[in-house]
Amino acid sequence: MSLLIDNIGELVTNDDGDGLLGLRRDVALVADGDRVAWIGPRRHAPAADARIDAGGAAVLPGFVDSHAHLVFAGDRAEEFGARMAGEPYTGGGIRTTMAATRAAADDELLGNAARLVAEMRRQGTTTVEIKSGYGLNVADEARSLRLARELTSETTFLGAHVVPAGHDPDDYVALVTGEMLDACAPYSKWVDVFCDRGAFDGDQAREILTAGIKRGLLPRLHANQLTEGPGVQLAVEVGAASADHCTHLSDADVAALAGSQTVATLLPGAEFSTRSPYPDARRLIDAGVRVALATDCNPGSSYTTSMPFCIALAVRDMRMTPAEAVHAATAGGALALRRDDVGRLRPGAKADLTVLDAPSHLHLAYRPGVPLIRTVLHNGVAQ
Amino acid sequence: MSLLIDNIGELVTNDDGDGLLGLRRDVALVADGDRVAWIGPRRHAPAADARIDAGGAAVLPGFVDSHAHLVFAGDRAEEFGARMAGEPYTGGGIRTTMAATRAAADDELLGNAARLVAEMRRQGTTTVEIKSGYGLNVADEARSLRLARELTSETTFLGAHVVPAGHDPDDYVALVTGEMLDACAPYSKWVDVFCDRGAFDGDQAREILTAGIKRGLLPRLHANQLTEGPGVQLAVEVGAASADHCTHLSDADVAALAGSQTVATLLPGAEFSTRSPYPDARRLIDAGVRVALATDCNPGSSYTTSMPFCIALAVRDMRMTPAEAVHAATAGGALALRRDDVGRLRPGAKADLTVLDAPSHLHLAYRPGVPLIRTVLHNGVAQ
Ligand SMILES: [Zn+2]
Ligand SMILES: [Zn+2]
Repeated sequence: MSLLIDNIGELVTNDDGDGLLGLRRDVALVADGDRVAWIGPRRHAPAADARIDAGGAAVLPGFVDSHAHLVFAGDRAEEFGARMAGEPYTGGGIRTTMAATRAAADDELLGNAARLVAEMRRQGTTTVEIKSGYGLNVADEARSLRLARELTSETTFLGAHVVPAGHDPDDYVALVTGEMLDACAPYSKWVDVFCDRGAFDGDQAREILTAGIKRGLLPRLHANQLTEGPGVQLAVEVGAASADHCTHLSDADVAALAGSQTVATLLPGAEFSTRSPYPDARRLIDAGVRVALATDCNPGSSYTTSMPFCIALAVRDMRMTPAEAVHAATAGGALALRRDDVGRLRPGAKADLTVLDAPSHLHLAYRPGVPLIRTVLHNGVAQ
Repeated sequence: MSLLIDNIGELVTNDDGDGLLGLRRDVALVADGDRVAWIGPRRHAPAADARIDAGGAAVLPGFVDSHAHLVFAGDRAEEFGARMAGEPYTGGGIRTTMAATRAAADDELLGNAARLVAEMRRQGTTTVEIKSGYGLNVADEARSLRLARELTSETTFLGAHVVPAGHDPDDYVALVTGEMLDACAPYSKWVDVFCDRGAFDGDQAREILTAGIKRGLLPRLHANQLTEGPGVQLAVEVGAASADHCTHLSDADVAALAGSQTVATLLPGAEFSTRSPYPDARRLIDAGVRVALATDCNPGSSYTTSMPFCIALAVRDMRMTPAEAVHAATAGGALALRRDDVGRLRPGAKADLTVLDAPSHLHLAYRPGVPLIRTVLHNGVAQ
């Protein structure tokens, strides 16, 4: 089954073309099966089994959301409302979600995550990473990853999200690196740690990442969200694909990232929903750091599934140009997942793309909040 | 034709119920024709010709977007991109849109405005105000309002948007208050002036508003967006329904608003898209000022049609509570248009409402950027 997408006004390839986005104008694209087969001038387009007329609109690689926490039950809208109103709120936090998640049946957890993945898909996201981290015991972490694996190959073991109440931190690290890792590794591509104030320190994080690496998992890290700390430099030290958040960085942190293969994944939804200062994307990009954007979708601090929203915030509040933000949400996310088959459009890449209801990628920042995703192609199939 | 909306988990009435939003839980609503006929406990719901099951979701009055500039041609995405990238850009500004608007055929102008109204509708807006202001001569201002009148009864004559190049300001004010007003009044409910640095001063604005009032139009005002100035106090002086923007206010401005019937309409999309400081909604609300939220949808400084986006910004960046922001986007907008048939849900009100894809109004701020509008009822008809 081949599909011709004709009459593309602007194609973001992140490959061969003009500028950072590899822009091409007035082209057509042919998908064959789940792959891009051909890109070129409209008049040279080969025959195909089906045709979509883009009507002069912009076409982009599907967004790559490289950081999301989707396996959970319950929501925390009341806690959010109280925080925004400056009112006290008892309870709340990750532990509330943990309790709801442990109590939920498999069907409920999978249904909730699948609903969020579908919501993402409608907003143009075609690749999503999903973390565990609300089970926080052997059975519920393994279950979370087994369910996540039904939705994506980009699964991340985050048993080290927080130390659950009543556990000694050292004992919990031993559990995470021992029995929990054994149970979770079969369903996981990645290992992650929340290395920050109130969570895990640098030594604990190193121990957990190292144990994961020994089991064949690839490292990534929640680093420097709440304060400066050892996270970013640890990420570089262990060769993590990504250091995520990067909100509070020393000059040495920026230099370490710039000299490494580690991507800085920025999550402005978290700063938006916690009224926190945004990371300084301009400083990172100007220093030569590779940057990704992701949603951090989770029920506590960033319950958005919208990559277009993150792009608009990145431009408004993190001083990225529209092109840089779109690149970070596509090619940047792919790099943060060490993928070269998504995040760009060229022959051989996955036929994952979006047709915008707009003539240019600029509109994703120029028209904030407006649902601009007209058509999504995932694995070559229109959704 | 009557329609039962059953199984409403949370109903925002802005009328009889709990708190600022007049919340009611586990109720049903019956629309008869274009009006709300009944609200009450589900088990008492009268029979109706048709039924929608809200499935426990939240139902809100349709959003009232009391400030939008929708009659124009062209877009200014390149200008936006250059501004966000800190690059120089020649041309641009209102005059660019003026030239494109004058050159466009009626069909193109109406089609563009209708497309934006439809985009608003899909995002839950059921009442929209539309201004002229990109014609800036007698024929094109009158044409803009005639076309706007095909889409809404809330039409606003904004011939005094800016002094077009090559015109003497005093001569232009004479034109606006004379021949242009004569041509535009038949299609207009409101008269508006952009009273700010680089546009019209207090005396000019007073002259234009007074002339409009004499012709039976009702006054509203673009005031204090770019700098402190006479706009807000002039709005109060002439009994304007609304002073719009209110970004830079003296204590005397706040006191004048608090002691008046004039609504402060805040337009955070404009601050978002120009990287400007937001108005201080908290200060206004704490002083007793009535507040509305609107999009300011226009191709130059705020090309969003999304009231949910404005609600999320108002909570994040203007220190409104979620309830205050939702109220301002519904009942507040209605007050800014001096309407009591929209913006609230009670028997006799227009059957304009939205069913959210969420259990609570909180989700509009809690889930920023996510399209949460499941069903829109306009004039009692599901869209
Ligand atoms: Zn996270
Ligand atoms: Zn305006």
